[in-house]
Amino acid sequence: MVPISREQIERARDRLQGVARVTPLLPADSLDLPSSGNLHLKAENLQRTGSFKLRGAYNAIAALSPEERARGVITYSSGNHGQGVACASALQGVEAVIVMPDDAVPLKVEKTRQWGARVEFAGLTSLARMERAMELVQEHGYTVIPPFDHPEIIAGQGTVGLEILQQMPDIEAVVVPIGGGGLISGIATAVRALRPGVRVIGVEPAGGADARDSIREGEVVTWDRIDTVADGLRTSRIGDLNFATIRETVDSIVTVTDAEIMDTVGMLARDAKLVVEPSGATAPAAVLFGHTGTGGLRTVAVISGGNIGPEMLASALTDTAARQPAAR
Amino acid sequence: MVPISREQIERARDRLQGVARVTPLLPADSLDLPSSGNLHLKAENLQRTGSFKLRGAYNAIAALSPEERARGVITYSSGNHGQGVACASALQGVEAVIVMPDDAVPLKVEKTRQWGARVEFAGLTSLARMERAMELVQEHGYTVIPPFDHPEIIAGQGTVGLEILQQMPDIEAVVVPIGGGGLISGIATAVRALRPGVRVIGVEPAGGADARDSIREGEVVTWDRIDTVADGLRTSRIGDLNFATIRETVDSIVTVTDAEIMDTVGMLARDAKLVVEPSGATAPAAVLFGHTGTGGLRTVAVISGGNIGPEMLASALTDTAARQPAAR
Repeated sequence: MVPISREQIERARDRLQGVARVTPLLPADSLDLPSSGNLHLKAENLQRTGSFKLRGAYNAIAALSPEERARGVITYSSGNHGQGVACASALQGVEAVIVMPDDAVPLKVEKTRQWGARVEFAGLTSLARMERAMELVQEHGYTVIPPFDHPEIIAGQGTVGLEILQQMPDIEAVVVPIGGGGLISGIATAVRALRPGVRVIGVEPAGGADARDSIREGEVVTWDRIDTVADGLRTSRIGDLNFATIRETVDSIVTVTDAEIMDTVGMLARDAKLVVEPSGATAPAAVLFGHTGTGGLRTVAVISGGNIGPEMLASALTDTAARQPAAR
Repeated sequence: MVPISREQIERARDRLQGVARVTPLLPADSLDLPSSGNLHLKAENLQRTGSFKLRGAYNAIAALSPEERARGVITYSSGNHGQGVACASALQGVEAVIVMPDDAVPLKVEKTRQWGARVEFAGLTSLARMERAMELVQEHGYTVIPPFDHPEIIAGQGTVGLEILQQMPDIEAVVVPIGGGGLISGIATAVRALRPGVRVIGVEPAGGADARDSIREGEVVTWDRIDTVADGLRTSRIGDLNFATIRETVDSIVTVTDAEIMDTVGMLARDAKLVVEPSGATAPAAVLFGHTGTGGLRTVAVISGGNIGPEMLASALTDTAARQPAAR
């Protein structure tokens, strides 16, 4: 039994109607690689806020009681989840506080404030941020919207899976990045419930393969040091609900190197005309570099987001302009 | 009376079924500009070959007689039309020759050859290329597939208009770039036939506003020197069929500067996560910089293509990282 039900995901889909975009499923044939023939890309980089995170955040806030909503919400992510919470709160008229490190990227601070969220700075460590968030919860009665280990977050991300199945009814494999495990838990639950024969493959950066190790060990494993260019996947452990779901639903977990990730960022921009952040390129990279064993299968790789700094994208474009991965 | 009929465009749509992608119509609200609230982007940069040109080229080749198709086709564009003809020929099993200048960009040569087309080099001027093409026509009986001044090319590009009307039935204005005039002629014909009240606005680079001048003068005007970053719009005169169509169907023609174009290339990459070439950014630029007078109207701007060199995209990303157009 998986912790989240198909009905929870369908309820999330109803809540997200007219809020989250139904993002396009794009053929990857422009990538000119042998393995790209049957590959499609689910372009969540074209989602509002530039990543799938809006889905879970909106759904979790929509599931709160009127009293909770009146008191406001809080989270402590300066990345895509923070943007998702800020946007979702604005759309639902809920006050939001995003706790960020003192050295947060000014652009991210500004984007969060553009949604009307309040930014609170708290030290340099995630521990300091969490402590500050808890103080504010005590003081104001805010509800914490966690990034992945939460049923309504997982259900919201699962709507990506429902869309994929509708957009490609004859799908044979789906490849999804794993950070905390919210996205793959939602997608795998939807896919297992509706199309049980589809292969579900998770992808982690080689420098942070704690989900793979967790499944191998049979319990949640924490990596003390995560070293990857994929900043959205730098979680040191997956969530407990996510572990329980992944163990039941995911066929295999593979890894990609930072070089493969950045080559794929460059290829997606040059050939597929899509701006993709490193975390968002991991699933396509795993397919294109031959790690998923899905050659010949009708495969969807999920692009989770597109929030890459302009300088990093510029360097991915020019560094890899002449390179192409070898056919495998 | 316009030269192309709605029925010709509908026939082109039938031919293009399963060949050209129905490209997504994406809300531009991520651009965070006052004028972007009602703006949607028709993303032909996500079309096969990276531009709309495949549509017209495929339709024109499909309309040939079996004998003509057996003899093969030829064109003399190293840009998006050349790619479109190469791809369309490959898909229909027709031999294609693309005449390019001796100094053609190696990447474009390579991409053309990847489609199986033969590349023929001929001097450095467009006159030299055209002369070489005519020699080859004499010798082999190839049929010339012209870039814009041709009924089946215009009809093929018009399928973009049919898709837009289906994707946004309550559209009030459509904004389209003008080079030779094929794309806007097709779209405007479709829109006038099916939704006569919709405003149709053309956009040219300020350094090549020959279509605007032609409408003003009442006859096709040639600009001897075109100076713009928008390489896809460097045609010195619009076609005769295109002139006749634009005069009947287009409400106004506005211009954008190279700085506005490149700022928009940067914004589209950073905020909308789309890789767009300078020509493809002209229509969104005209709306975003307030030249179209469409504020408040439900507006679609057509992104015509995404084939930008990696170095140019990299510089657009970093040069304009801190700038935003003023609200107007």
